Amino acid sequence: MAGRKAVELEVYLDLLSQPCRAIHIFLNCNKIPHKVKTVAIRKGENRTPEYTKLNPMQKVPVMVDNDFVLTESDAILKYLATKYDVPGNWYPRHPERRARVDEYTAWHHTNTRPHAAKVFLMEVLLPHMTGQPADPLKVERALADLSDTLEKLENMFLKRQPFLCGDDISLADLLAMCELMQPLGGGRDILKDRPKLLSWKGRVQSALGDSFGKAHTVLYSLRDRSKAKL
Amino acid sequence: MAGRKAVELEVYLDLLSQPCRAIHIFLNCNKIPHKVKTVAIRKGENRTPEYTKLNPMQKVPVMVDNDFVLTESDAILKYLATKYDVPGNWYPRHPERRARVDEYTAWHHTNTRPHAAKVFLMEVLLPHMTGQPADPLKVERALADLSDTLEKLENMFLKRQPFLCGDDISLADLLAMCELMQPLGGGRDILKDRPKLLSWKGRVQSALGDSFGKAHTVLYSLRDRSKAKL
Repeated sequence: MAGRKAVELEVYLDLLSQPCRAIHIFLNCNKIPHKVKTVAIRKGENRTPEYTKLNPMQKVPVMVDNDFVLTESDAILKYLATKYDVPGNWYPRHPERRARVDEYTAWHHTNTRPHAAKVFLMEVLLPHMTGQPADPLKVERALADLSDTLEKLENMFLKRQPFLCGDDISLADLLAMCELMQPLGGGRDILKDRPKLLSWKGRVQSALGDSFGKAHTVLYSLRDRSKAKL
Repeated sequence: MAGRKAVELEVYLDLLSQPCRAIHIFLNCNKIPHKVKTVAIRKGENRTPEYTKLNPMQKVPVMVDNDFVLTESDAILKYLATKYDVPGNWYPRHPERRARVDEYTAWHHTNTRPHAAKVFLMEVLLPHMTGQPADPLKVERALADLSDTLEKLENMFLKRQPFLCGDDISLADLLAMCELMQPLGGGRDILKDRPKLLSWKGRVQSALGDSFGKAHTVLYSLRDRSKAKL
């Protein structure tokens, strides 16, 4: 009897990184066999010679599918959705519907991603690195930029539909939600006073099932430690 | 004899915007019938009620293909490459080759695009808006960030291949080159001391033919006016 073929798909992830969680969730939710290699950024594991050889940019995530090495979460998710047999809603094949996902993911890079990440940077990373408390003025500015992004998510993308790009969950919702969870690491729930985004979050979580909580365990621990400090 | 079908593809562009030029070039180079509607940002034409109805984000470019309205240059180019019969090199169908283009375009949003644009902002837009000369320290910082991006284009993307994503021109080269041209509007040729990038530019221009110069006419005029001022 021939042995079962070894898993050939590997992903290098740090679950404190938002795009890494999106990939983790996507793989588990779609039951794609894979192996996770943990790269702890806080320990500098992304700067070892070995890792730099794999990704000269020294960033996470990295995907290795047999010999094919790919970086950039956006590209990795689209590749996985194309290469593996996942339901069409994730990254539709119909040109107009696919273009909607590409439109959001392009917008995401200069809106949802930097704005939510900056709040986390100001409230968690910088205080941790410098030993100084967060600068209230800088936090306020970051929250104002984020608020502008949240308005657009509500009033443009989710204006007439239950998910960012239509009637069903897609890569867009997954990438967006993982970013919007990040400030929770500093104890800040940015969605709590926004009923429209909260009900969208409920739909996203319910579509993702257990994979959502599993990917966020590390972030929840960080949140609990932040709360204990207050 | 039935009349020829009217052109149903419209693009709203300002040729002083880098991603707008990429779309202009792509359409002309591939001889896709289309109609250009000019949106002069300097005249605020992107903030009229009519335009805001078309694109609530008030940004250019916008594409309207029959009734389908799409924003974000990255998404528009990928849609056009899929929907119209263009050579496969622009946006390959093979998953690994396509992933390379998606990888660059994702990286582009937080590297080539903001870094080249910032030099133009510091040297051209801000002095024009404020009437004050450019701040040398801020220009220097913007140039340092851009230099880091240029190094990565040379030593990572173009390390072993003639174009950013392989042996032939793709959407990646087109988007990148239009960004790297932008500082020329202030009289600054950022590629002039970089032979590797210059020879890549030569290959890109030769693959694009007349469409390249045609899209850059307005930028060249701006460069000539900047030079006349010095």
